[in-house]
Amino acid sequence: MINIGIIGAGRIGKVHAQSITSLVPGAEVKAMADPFLTRETATWAQNLGIPHTTEDYREILEDPDIDAVLICSSTDTHSAISIEAVQAGKHIFCEKPIDHDTAKIREVIRALEGSHVKYQVGFNRRFDHNFEALQRTVSDGRIGSVHLIKITSRDPQPPSPEYVKVSGGMFLDMTIHDFDMVRFLAGCNATEVYAEAAVLVDPAIGETGDVDTAVITLKMENGSIAVIDNSRQAAYGYDQRAEVFGSNGMAAVSNDAPSSLVVSSADGVTGEKPLHFFLERYMDAYAKELRCFVQSIENDTDTPLGVMDGLEPVRMGLAAKKSLLEHRPVKISEIE
Amino acid sequence: MINIGIIGAGRIGKVHAQSITSLVPGAEVKAMADPFLTRETATWAQNLGIPHTTEDYREILEDPDIDAVLICSSTDTHSAISIEAVQAGKHIFCEKPIDHDTAKIREVIRALEGSHVKYQVGFNRRFDHNFEALQRTVSDGRIGSVHLIKITSRDPQPPSPEYVKVSGGMFLDMTIHDFDMVRFLAGCNATEVYAEAAVLVDPAIGETGDVDTAVITLKMENGSIAVIDNSRQAAYGYDQRAEVFGSNGMAAVSNDAPSSLVVSSADGVTGEKPLHFFLERYMDAYAKELRCFVQSIENDTDTPLGVMDGLEPVRMGLAAKKSLLEHRPVKISEIE
Amino acid sequence: MINIGIIGAGRIGKVHAQSITSLVPGAEVKAMADPFLTRETATWAQNLGIPHTTEDYREILEDPDIDAVLICSSTDTHSAISIEAVQAGKHIFCEKPIDHDTAKIREVIRALEGSHVKYQVGFNRRFDHNFEALQRTVSDGRIGSVHLIKITSRDPQPPSPEYVKVSGGMFLDMTIHDFDMVRFLAGCNATEVYAEAAVLVDPAIGETGDVDTAVITLKMENGSIAVIDNSRQAAYGYDQRAEVFGSNGMAAVSNDAPSSLVVSSADGVTGEKPLHFFLERYMDAYAKELRCFVQSIENDTDTPLGVMDGLEPVRMGLAAKKSLLEHRPVKISEIE
Amino acid sequence: MINIGIIGAGRIGKVHAQSITSLVPGAEVKAMADPFLTRETATWAQNLGIPHTTEDYREILEDPDIDAVLICSSTDTHSAISIEAVQAGKHIFCEKPIDHDTAKIREVIRALEGSHVKYQVGFNRRFDHNFEALQRTVSDGRIGSVHLIKITSRDPQPPSPEYVKVSGGMFLDMTIHDFDMVRFLAGCNATEVYAEAAVLVDPAIGETGDVDTAVITLKMENGSIAVIDNSRQAAYGYDQRAEVFGSNGMAAVSNDAPSSLVVSSADGVTGEKPLHFFLERYMDAYAKELRCFVQSIENDTDTPLGVMDGLEPVRMGLAAKKSLLEHRPVKISEIE
Repeated sequence: MINIGIIGAGRIGKVHAQSITSLVPGAEVKAMADPFLTRETATWAQNLGIPHTTEDYREILEDPDIDAVLICSSTDTHSAISIEAVQAGKHIFCEKPIDHDTAKIREVIRALEGSHVKYQVGFNRRFDHNFEALQRTVSDGRIGSVHLIKITSRDPQPPSPEYVKVSGGMFLDMTIHDFDMVRFLAGCNATEVYAEAAVLVDPAIGETGDVDTAVITLKMENGSIAVIDNSRQAAYGYDQRAEVFGSNGMAAVSNDAPSSLVVSSADGVTGEKPLHFFLERYMDAYAKELRCFVQSIENDTDTPLGVMDGLEPVRMGLAAKKSLLEHRPVKISEIE
Repeated sequence: MINIGIIGAGRIGKVHAQSITSLVPGAEVKAMADPFLTRETATWAQNLGIPHTTEDYREILEDPDIDAVLICSSTDTHSAISIEAVQAGKHIFCEKPIDHDTAKIREVIRALEGSHVKYQVGFNRRFDHNFEALQRTVSDGRIGSVHLIKITSRDPQPPSPEYVKVSGGMFLDMTIHDFDMVRFLAGCNATEVYAEAAVLVDPAIGETGDVDTAVITLKMENGSIAVIDNSRQAAYGYDQRAEVFGSNGMAAVSNDAPSSLVVSSADGVTGEKPLHFFLERYMDAYAKELRCFVQSIENDTDTPLGVMDGLEPVRMGLAAKKSLLEHRPVKISEIE
Repeated sequence: MINIGIIGAGRIGKVHAQSITSLVPGAEVKAMADPFLTRETATWAQNLGIPHTTEDYREILEDPDIDAVLICSSTDTHSAISIEAVQAGKHIFCEKPIDHDTAKIREVIRALEGSHVKYQVGFNRRFDHNFEALQRTVSDGRIGSVHLIKITSRDPQPPSPEYVKVSGGMFLDMTIHDFDMVRFLAGCNATEVYAEAAVLVDPAIGETGDVDTAVITLKMENGSIAVIDNSRQAAYGYDQRAEVFGSNGMAAVSNDAPSSLVVSSADGVTGEKPLHFFLERYMDAYAKELRCFVQSIENDTDTPLGVMDGLEPVRMGLAAKKSLLEHRPVKISEIE
Repeated sequence: MINIGIIGAGRIGKVHAQSITSLVPGAEVKAMADPFLTRETATWAQNLGIPHTTEDYREILEDPDIDAVLICSSTDTHSAISIEAVQAGKHIFCEKPIDHDTAKIREVIRALEGSHVKYQVGFNRRFDHNFEALQRTVSDGRIGSVHLIKITSRDPQPPSPEYVKVSGGMFLDMTIHDFDMVRFLAGCNATEVYAEAAVLVDPAIGETGDVDTAVITLKMENGSIAVIDNSRQAAYGYDQRAEVFGSNGMAAVSNDAPSSLVVSSADGVTGEKPLHFFLERYMDAYAKELRCFVQSIENDTDTPLGVMDGLEPVRMGLAAKKSLLEHRPVKISEIE
């Protein structure tokens, strides 16, 4: 049995706590820490069977019974807590991104060198049944060599301008998942980025200096071209699709809906909207990424998404920001 | 060049005239006859390049330049004109049904014996791209031996009660197409029919003694079971689907829409309704059945749908009527 | 916390044990009984955290700490154990069917009269996301008054002839789910059944006196007509679809697949096969039916599927058998 | 009756001749000219009822009975013949592109100034049922203001390297249709282009200096962003899709297939490939663009696609070439 401590009791911390309790065999949540721990959260944790809650995550790091930590705190603390957790000898599952600053990610990388700590980054979409099936199809060679990768990723509603201000910008906050997905599907890194973007959803987002609509083109190491389109607001809900085109054909995945219901009436032939947002769409993926993490510890194997997989999408996001600012294609190698 | 005379200048007669003019190479409409020929129709025919119009179809039968006739007059005249046309040595394309009375169809059969006249019945749906593809898939053995055949056939709106009175009833007027389709897809005849039906669309139809909603089960000579469902009124339009299930899988065809447009909005994910009714859905099939008829004449080969194919669906329809009346399964062999 | 004892540790008993452990808040499995309890099953139960296993289900009925039982034993014991459990004051979730003999079901009904025991029958498909959405659409009136109900239910492979012999026949073993679904979708009972069936999948099934392929037509109390098609073997997997057609339109649900992956290649445009069989397709439904059962106990409300819902599909199944035997439509009122 | 002369008897000239004969009421082909007129073509024309064939297109321009010409000759002759035809007072339908050189297109524009000649450019896709439905949905405001436009356009097989050499390059030969489509869907011009491209299909294409795979991003006057992806070879056939995303939702059109047939088997659930290539997919559109041209003459109204609509996609194509060469975003205003 792997004993787990969760650092950060916000929305995603709670999702992980529930997943481990119900859907991750061989693991138990032993403690949960949050600097702003409320009575409600403490009660919620107790009801879930979590024996210990605290405001101080160091209690978790210092607890010799705890094997692994999930870092679900605010982004600016991810890298520092990662390093502390390495030093404490705890295996680490860290929510994305490790940091917006690649220098800080490299510090984590250095801390991990020579340690036996497992490190996994929380790019949950790789564990989604659709994207898994797509990646497997591509890596099995069923569509031949990859020529084009297309990812559509649109949120149902924009975040508040307050959140946008501290988010690192759309490319590091939202597109970062798509940058990871491009690497996952291509099976290689990007070499260059060109970003076209606009403020079309909410002028208040523009006032923070960010954008809300984008098309990002990438050159990949394997010679293929990838393109991501993003919007912060799709009227029909969370839009998460991908298509890979190759020398022997095309593989594509589309949205999941609450049911397969189709109503035919005088108004047309109408199916359901996609599952609302990431919690609905990726609930199974959140549990699966943790099962994989736990299995990596149990079997002493590499995690499916190591610390280098945390670095590369940040470089891509920074390159996209630079491309937008300087209005030109930017090589990934220009970043750091 | 095959010279054609069209007997009957109603809706379907005009459809065929246009098809031949534009879409049937090697054939020309030389004359059109209708007992109630209007000035408008005469002008319409002239504009289409049809040199002769008349109220008397015998002018067509007596014209030595005419090779073939299309019988598009009212159903009660089909068998008598068929026999006259055989006697005149004209090849015959006859709209369905040849008659509601199998005795009269058998008279046509006898008239044809020994003659060299080509005879084709107008079951247009066999020439539809969807049903053709389905039939080919089944006859090619791709789904193995046939176990189940399912046909959905629903009209967008019911006919007037006046029409219903003289129509022969839903089974002979509407389901007759589905009876033909069952034979086409199964590749054999039915042996028994059980009809369940109701008046759910329009009480005025019930007052004429007819039904407007039905489920009809058939046992086929090859051991498979077929089921047809009918409605005189589908709010979303003309519904024409079929599915064949066999030992190695299933083949199915669905409706055609005006376009592939799908609109995703806060109201759902909405595609277009099916093409409105038979003229929209089967326009290409109407032309194709005539091209096949003309080719049969040119090449002196059998027509794809001979006079026996006109008899069998009528027997099935009469058996269905008897089944409904006597509330029991009825063998086709009980009819005649 | 509702304490539950599970009687029967076969496949479905184990599915329920896992569901309660992971996915049913407010309930715990306290004991599991099976007359042929193996060491493996005992260990399995222990690992799942079930404190007690026994060969004698009476230990469960006599345990004052146990609030409710799940009857997952062989069908021939369902009614007798139901009555014993009523007498022991335990709430009861009973797998379908309660019995193949309506007299025995009526004994259970009589035993329940005047008791405060909750009784739920295990027609899991009502809790499936697709069928729930379909039923809601119909009961909300979105398609108007119901005219036609169509259910397709095909298994991926046939049971062994040995199983078939003791199964009560396809109508009581397999179609019984569809009979329940027809009632669920129509919102009323059937009044008459006509069954057409054949042995097309496996002659060995025919040798037991059963059939493996069927089309069953039903007249419903609300005037609509329902039709079910069944096969014991679909080459492409578990086929579970339904369509309801009404005065204002049509609502339909189709199969769930492992993913939305579509591969376009020189061979065509290919999506995934349906989820393999009932355990894959209805896993969520199995958990949901138990959550509803537990909530009915917690809130002292009626269960969603009472004992009368267990009786009616058996009557429909027996009527279908009689219809097939006597080759005629059979009224439900002829059964008992 | 509009009398038409066709200049150029290659594939597309013949397609237009057949369309006019069968599918364009109110118009007749009176003459066909081709400098390499073969006996076969002359016979073919005669059989179609075209009274005159010639090697010299000037015979057509000088024929006072001819009202309009279709310029279907090689691209390098389009602008010169256009100007001659204006001078001869013939209405002009000119295949795309008018020229690869914008200066020559501007000469045609100047020639047309003050004349009463109708001029239409052959961007046939605007007349396709899918793209028409998509454009109408967007222009009706059903998806709100436009944010993103995505076009996928992939050919089933690449042209020969010999053709590629004289084609003007992929952007002017193939993408030009997509540039027109972007303008059609956005309802405005592009302001800037960024092209990413590669040689992934056929190295021989690369040796001519051209590319065969591309992703092209465009900024539009209305603030939206468009992206086109192209490949010269899709293993599954001609891929012609588009999607427009706006403030209130998304509208998308997909490929047309020969039929709606879907086969479910142990290998998956397989539909048909798209219609093979442009002649199959756009046959109706080719006829419709000519009906619109003829109606513009009959009613003395503007053609749906004037000479300016011929200029702008060429500018976009030249900007894309420049972008690829200089590896930077290029403003359309930089072209001429």
